[in-house]
Formats: sequence, C-alpha cells, structure tokens
Amino acid sequence: VTRESDLLRHIYRRSAHLSDRDAVVLGPGDDAAALHMSHDALLTVDQLIEGRHYAKGTPVDAIAHKAVARSVSDVAAMAGRPRAALCAACLRTGTTEADALFDAVARSGDALGCPMIGGDIAFADGPTILTLTVIGTPHPVRGPVTRSGARPGDTVCVTGRLGNSFKSGRHLAFTPRVEEACALADALGERLTSMIDISDGLGRDLARVAEASGVRITLDAAALPRHDDVDGWLSAASDGEDYELAFTVTGTPPDAVHGTAVTVIGMVEDGAGCIARADDGTLHDLTEAGWDHES
Amino acid sequence: VTRESDLLRHIYRRSAHLSDRDAVVLGPGDDAAALHMSHDALLTVDQLIEGRHYAKGTPVDAIAHKAVARSVSDVAAMAGRPRAALCAACLRTGTTEADALFDAVARSGDALGCPMIGGDIAFADGPTILTLTVIGTPHPVRGPVTRSGARPGDTVCVTGRLGNSFKSGRHLAFTPRVEEACALADALGERLTSMIDISDGLGRDLARVAEASGVRITLDAAALPRHDDVDGWLSAASDGEDYELAFTVTGTPPDAVHGTAVTVIGMVEDGAGCIARADDGTLHDLTEAGWDHES
Repeated sequence: VTRESDLLRHIYRRSAHLSDRDAVVLGPGDDAAALHMSHDALLTVDQLIEGRHYAKGTPVDAIAHKAVARSVSDVAAMAGRPRAALCAACLRTGTTEADALFDAVARSGDALGCPMIGGDIAFADGPTILTLTVIGTPHPVRGPVTRSGARPGDTVCVTGRLGNSFKSGRHLAFTPRVEEACALADALGERLTSMIDISDGLGRDLARVAEASGVRITLDAAALPRHDDVDGWLSAASDGEDYELAFTVTGTPPDAVHGTAVTVIGMVEDGAGCIARADDGTLHDLTEAGWDHES
Repeated sequence: VTRESDLLRHIYRRSAHLSDRDAVVLGPGDDAAALHMSHDALLTVDQLIEGRHYAKGTPVDAIAHKAVARSVSDVAAMAGRPRAALCAACLRTGTTEADALFDAVARSGDALGCPMIGGDIAFADGPTILTLTVIGTPHPVRGPVTRSGARPGDTVCVTGRLGNSFKSGRHLAFTPRVEEACALADALGERLTSMIDISDGLGRDLARVAEASGVRITLDAAALPRHDDVDGWLSAASDGEDYELAFTVTGTPPDAVHGTAVTVIGMVEDGAGCIARADDGTLHDLTEAGWDHES
C-alpha cells in the first residue's frame, strides 16, 4: 500500500498547474485551498460507495467520473456552474490503484469544470468511499434555482430520457446537465420556478419538490420519456440515477435546451405529494417510489 | 436503522434557523447550499475514521467535536476564519445513534463558527467515517498564511504545549486556534511568514513547511513546550494530534497571543528538512517522525 505522504506528494505535483488559473488562488498542498469568489458560493457534498453506487471491479475512470459528476449534477440542479472540487477518499485496505484513482478524479474534475483543489486520503477495512465536495457559482442573473418555487399551474418538465440507468451502465457515463440548466435559467429567468436532478428516482425526487414548494405534482405516466431498454413507465419514474433535470415552468416551456430534448410530463396543482396518472386513469403515489440509498 | 430520508428531514428541520443568518443564503435541504462570499474562500476537507482517529465507544459529542474541530484547525492554520461546513457521514451498518451524531455535529459546527449548511448520509459495512468540509475566509489584510513563506533567519514558534494528545484524550477536546491565528496575523502581518497546525507531529508537519519553503528548520529539543504527562522531547516532537499552531516569524515573536503562550522552539536556516538538536548536541532528523494516518 502506498503511504499517504507519497500519495499526497504525487497529487500536489500533478496539481501544480492549477495555481495558474485565475480562480484558484491556492491549490492543493497546504492546510486549505483558496478560491477567488466574487459571487456567492454553491456548495454540495456526496459520497460514492463501492458496492452501493458502483460494482467492485468498475474501472477507475468510470468510478472517478461518477463521483465527480454526481456532485456537479447537484450544482447543475441549482442552475449553477462548478468551479472547484475537493476529494476525500477512504480506500479499502490493500487497494493497489489508489494513485490511478486520484489521477482519474483529477482528470474528471478538469473535464467537468471543477479542478481538484484539495483532498484527504485514508485507508480502512471497509468499502472504498469517494466523498466529493463541489463549489460552484449560481446563475449570475437568476440566482440559485431551488426546489421550493413550484406553483400551481406550472408545467413539469424533464430533460433527456429516463430509466434503467444502473443496469445499463449509464449511471457511470452520464454528462451532468450543467449547460442545459444554465441555458434554462438564461431563457426562462424567474419562469424557471424550481429544479432538481434525478438521483433517487423521478417520483421520489419530484415529491421533494412538491414538499418543499407546498404543492402536488401530477405526472402523465404515458408522457415519461424512456430509454429504449426501459420496460414500462414505472421504471422510468422510479429507477433513479438518471441525473436528468426535472423542473417546473410558468408558461410555455422550450422543446429542447442546449440540444437536449425537453418533455412536458405533468402539472403542478394544489395539494401534496407526487402522483402519476396511468393510461387507464388509475393514480399511483410516487412519493416513496425510487431508490433509497439506504434500502 | 433510521431511513436516510427521515434523517435528512430531521436535519433540515434542525437547520431551519440558518436561513436567518446573513452569510447562509440557502441552508440544507436543496441540491446545494448557497453561501454569501464577498471575499475569497478557504476550503478544506478531512475524514475522521472510527478505530483510527477515535476509539469505538467514544461519546458522540466528542466524535462530532473532533470531526469539526480538525477541519476548523486547518482553516486556522491559514489564519482564516471558518464560515460554514458540510458533513458527509458513512455510518457503520446498524448504527443506532445516527441522529444523535448529526445533532452533535450541528452543535459543534455552531460552537466553532461554521454552521452545517449541507451534508450526505450513507450506511456501509465498515467503520463510521465523518467527512467534514469547512469553508472559511482568509485574514482580510494578511490573506492566506501558507506553508511556503519561511525564510532563513526566521524564528520558529509554537502555541500551547505538545505531546501525548491521543492517549490523554486531549485530541477529543481541543480548541482550534482560530483566535490565536487571527491575532498573530493582525499583530505580525507579513512578518508571520508561514504557519501549519500540528496534526501528524511537530517534526513531520514542520518538515512540510521546510519542504514547501525550501529551507531547513532546526529545533531546540529542550525548548519544546510539553504537557505535564509527556515523557521526553521526542514525544512532544512526534506524537501529533496537538492541533497547536507552528509558525515562523521574521523579527521578534510575541510571548503570548490571545492568552495562549507562544514558545520559540527553533530557527529557519538554509538547507532542507526538519531536525532537532538535543541537549547533548546530537542531531535528530524529524522529517519522518510523527503519526502517519496510514501507518
């Protein structure tokens, strides 16, 4: 097993170029990093756990991409842009690919607009865990788009297509919808009333929007855009790990944004919860439909 | 085991008061938190691992305090002030005190000047791990005090007393030297040439300052301030987990800062590494003396 001090030295060398970038006042290698922030900061943290969020044996590039992309997706869900990231890794004792993993995390950060400016490494007798903190900036005009702004009469929309992300492997290769989210905020401004990224399942995540906004969200099951390998609307509504944007719009939504299709999937109404209306008219409560990280 | 969604709901309720604070634009409960940042941001992340950084059975209040205080200490080491924090927890499967632990983390954050504005919870078959990201602001005049500014001729100083922190239990109850660090930057300005907090051991940590600054640091072994329960200077120089500040000063250092004693322990010279000169005149290389989290 590589020693922590050797690993850290390697990381600092790799990140030496970062100090050239305007935003990064001080990169890795000191007690803390320093980042130039003229705006407010968006901050999010997420853990990626071996055996839970990815199978043992997944290539390090895919692990690293997913770890960074999930937290970037949270910034996108606010209509923000990622600026920098920190990676804390607790690696399974005996891990031989620690350095390859950190190289891959650094590359993923660069590719996704958030260079790694700090981190921490440890080893333990448990699954490998990558904890990614991403710092971003909100949309300069619209500000943070929260979950709490949906209003009765708004249209509910989703980007892209849904379902079967985990089994198909798409959960390892998705592109966080940063450009789409910024373009929505550009185009819609205050008409973009709420937004969330779909991690735990469309129904469960929209139930959070409904709860935060104090409204009911009713989906048209037949309207849910599905990937070709998805069997039935319930899979699209509950599989999770799609990392698409679900959002609410006052007035007319766009058909597409930044080249990605936008589909109208439901309406915001008075009430509570997230329900789906199937073709046969039956109503299905989706509030608990989805992937609980705990289950 | 409590469900993640229930835990998160509890956390959001507990943090509802945060939105009243000026700096916290948006607290926990959305995809990301938002923080008002008019200055640059200091950012650091650290992991606290059960069985490594604290013994199983340690009271949750002590675990939470140490988790938050370690990352706050990193901000202090830059002469910064903590502003907010995020806590990612991966709890040992079957943990029954998840909620008590999060309550304690929230209290520790409040007590240490960095309210929790976000987090993530998961469970896994491994040690409980608390990953604390702390966001701070640098000293408004002096800016970030790095490890790389020590110059030959500078005096090397340390706050407080050293040694036997882990066995004595002091590692669970220390106060991060935020006020001391800010007061040093106030009083010394650019004469405060470098600073680090002592986590892995005085010798090992000062070796990092020496490497970053391109200098040698020579300590007077007899001068090291020791707690009463510490046997010999090597323990003070290598035990680690002191979370005191070690720093270099051009010109005369203060005798005390913010009520905490400051002790002159050595000099900065041309060369490399960190060595200690014992009473008998022998030289001891301290570069590798200290607690490696990996060993």
